[in-house]
Amino acid sequence: MSKLPNVGTTIFTVMSGLAAQYAAINLSQGFPDFDCNETLKHLVNEAMEAGYNQYAPMPGIMPLREAIAGKIRLLYGQTVNADTEITVTPGGTYAIFTAIATVIGPGDEVIIFEPAYDSYIPNLLVNGGVPVRIPLSFPDYHIDWSLVRSKITPRTKMIMLNTPHNPTGSILTQNDIDELEKLVAEHNILILSDEVYEHLIYDGKEHLSILRYPALRKNSFVTFSFGKVFHNTGWKMGYCIAPPHLMAEYRKVHQYLCFSVNTPMQHGLAKFLQTPDHYLSLPAFFQGKRDYFLSLMKETRFTPLHSSGSYFQLMKYDRISEEGDKEFAIRITKEFGVASIPVSAFYEDGKDDHVVRFCFAKKNETLEKAVERLRKI
Amino acid sequence: MSKLPNVGTTIFTVMSGLAAQYAAINLSQGFPDFDCNETLKHLVNEAMEAGYNQYAPMPGIMPLREAIAGKIRLLYGQTVNADTEITVTPGGTYAIFTAIATVIGPGDEVIIFEPAYDSYIPNLLVNGGVPVRIPLSFPDYHIDWSLVRSKITPRTKMIMLNTPHNPTGSILTQNDIDELEKLVAEHNILILSDEVYEHLIYDGKEHLSILRYPALRKNSFVTFSFGKVFHNTGWKMGYCIAPPHLMAEYRKVHQYLCFSVNTPMQHGLAKFLQTPDHYLSLPAFFQGKRDYFLSLMKETRFTPLHSSGSYFQLMKYDRISEEGDKEFAIRITKEFGVASIPVSAFYEDGKDDHVVRFCFAKKNETLEKAVERLRKI
Ligand SMILES: CSCCC(=O)C(=O)O
Ligand SMILES: CSCCC(=O)C(=O)O
Repeated sequence: MSKLPNVGTTIFTVMSGLAAQYAAINLSQGFPDFDCNETLKHLVNEAMEAGYNQYAPMPGIMPLREAIAGKIRLLYGQTVNADTEITVTPGGTYAIFTAIATVIGPGDEVIIFEPAYDSYIPNLLVNGGVPVRIPLSFPDYHIDWSLVRSKITPRTKMIMLNTPHNPTGSILTQNDIDELEKLVAEHNILILSDEVYEHLIYDGKEHLSILRYPALRKNSFVTFSFGKVFHNTGWKMGYCIAPPHLMAEYRKVHQYLCFSVNTPMQHGLAKFLQTPDHYLSLPAFFQGKRDYFLSLMKETRFTPLHSSGSYFQLMKYDRISEEGDKEFAIRITKEFGVASIPVSAFYEDGKDDHVVRFCFAKKNETLEKAVERLRKI
Repeated sequence: MSKLPNVGTTIFTVMSGLAAQYAAINLSQGFPDFDCNETLKHLVNEAMEAGYNQYAPMPGIMPLREAIAGKIRLLYGQTVNADTEITVTPGGTYAIFTAIATVIGPGDEVIIFEPAYDSYIPNLLVNGGVPVRIPLSFPDYHIDWSLVRSKITPRTKMIMLNTPHNPTGSILTQNDIDELEKLVAEHNILILSDEVYEHLIYDGKEHLSILRYPALRKNSFVTFSFGKVFHNTGWKMGYCIAPPHLMAEYRKVHQYLCFSVNTPMQHGLAKFLQTPDHYLSLPAFFQGKRDYFLSLMKETRFTPLHSSGSYFQLMKYDRISEEGDKEFAIRITKEFGVASIPVSAFYEDGKDDHVVRFCFAKKNETLEKAVERLRKI
């Protein structure tokens, strides 16, 4: 009777719950412990006060879609049509689900890379899709394109990408883009690119958004989140970009799934995006957090894995027993008061490399307190 | 390639678009032209200012779920478990889609009554369900239960109800409940009851929520909307109530579809619900609107059909030519400046009884101006 017999509570809910229960510092679920911008809050309040409290147009209010198009022009030098190629969604997770619901039906195979964000596989299963899981190479988590090619069948409908990647922080490289372009030219494969950590790229690297590449973009849904980058994960605001023929189908599903998205928050975000510094300042801001966290973690039993983006840092730990990473993450929450996410939770088969994920989108003092505790392990 | 080849733009988007284009008074799409309560807006702003801007718990914040349970106790004398039976959603439409996605798979038959709210059938189709359409009896739009029984097959999985009913304003009666209880006792059928117009019931009648009847409730998803009753359709806030075994499955889908819902708005609504008068005053408020609209419409070519609830009024019109109701609705928008919804849009086969739907959730002066124009027809 269940469509998702093997689905339990998400690891994020489990670990945040445990953190609350044991009054642990919560570096598990990906959200900041500092507040979003005051101006942004005021803009939303102004919109409410001005009476923007009824249905927005189904694809989103035009000023917000135009502001998104402006941002893409500025960042990636690409033109996106606000009328036909952008739809505002209640968050990035919804944007991904809706893309899958739009094109995936029973028996359609979809390539996903593991570790994979935990909503991808259930989203495919609810729609009858067949996940074809490919491990990223440990420990640098790059894509093995020959492995990808070996998994292509006549039923392969889509490939799902995530750059910057959650939980590993790896990013797509020019070589990945070249391989992807060859693949898409040879086979008729759709792309779903989850780019919710768009601005969070470090060490001077560039975000190779799928939107930069016309040969890829014409086959792609690309999803984004305001919550992840503007520190308001609880507002549940995001968007999807796709070429007109795909977006037309996407909107058919969206218009009957949610119809439209929070109106005053759309107005607030539309005005906030008029100041590019609000997003241009993000890489430096989060790189500062990342570097500070890494420097603090030097005197612990944890070794960082390489990361180029997102607000997560993977850490390999010295095992002191036979325990798996889930038991380890639970134990350090209970005994040392710091919650993390065991990376095996992002593998369908629970592959365990003895790695946990820490979210460093936290106040410096939170990071300091957490690492003080982690030093005791 | 399309999952919804026959789906166009919703009639609501079409008619609201036309209303804007021709500067017509918009009595089509169901939303008020007056603002929501000032206190409610302030409560949301306070929550934002207090820093409630990160992820809410997946099923909703507990104070809101408890406030909802309190309201149900007060209105229907029933106990609902806030922990296991309530999930907050981004609107009523989403609440309905998610219930369908939770239980309906390829080949499952679902009974729906026509005229039907326009999202129901596409929601079923996206999930592989088979809509079994049963017309409500014209002109009073009651359910013919012998017809329902004749349509039950071993594949019948669910029956969808909507009370108060959009677009007709009909409501479930005690006889309907009795018939439903017999049906559910004999066959193992789920119920999805869309009760988004919950408080909008007139002439001293009672809302026979499915939640009142334990024998029905144990098989039911019941969906609600804050936007429809608190005059903030643009906030996209609603909820679903179901018994624990169904809600557990519902949450498996929800947690990967949207994960959680707008946090500051949940906090604002939780506090707003502490004052029962905010919803206890709604029947009188909207009945005043309905009665005023009906009195104004007396001197027109329109004859009201009987209605007991919702904020819609169906009107039969004197045909002056062979034109269908869609052409009629478009023509009076363009030529007379009043937008309505042709009721044929709520029938899969376009059944046309020469009836249009007006939304009377409007300022009195808006209703006056609109009827002044309608008198000229
Ligand atoms: C939707 S809760 C999880 C947040 C998140 O993206 C993460 O922690 O990886
Ligand atoms: C979601 S737009 C339609 C609003 C509505 O419920 C209606 O007009 O019937």
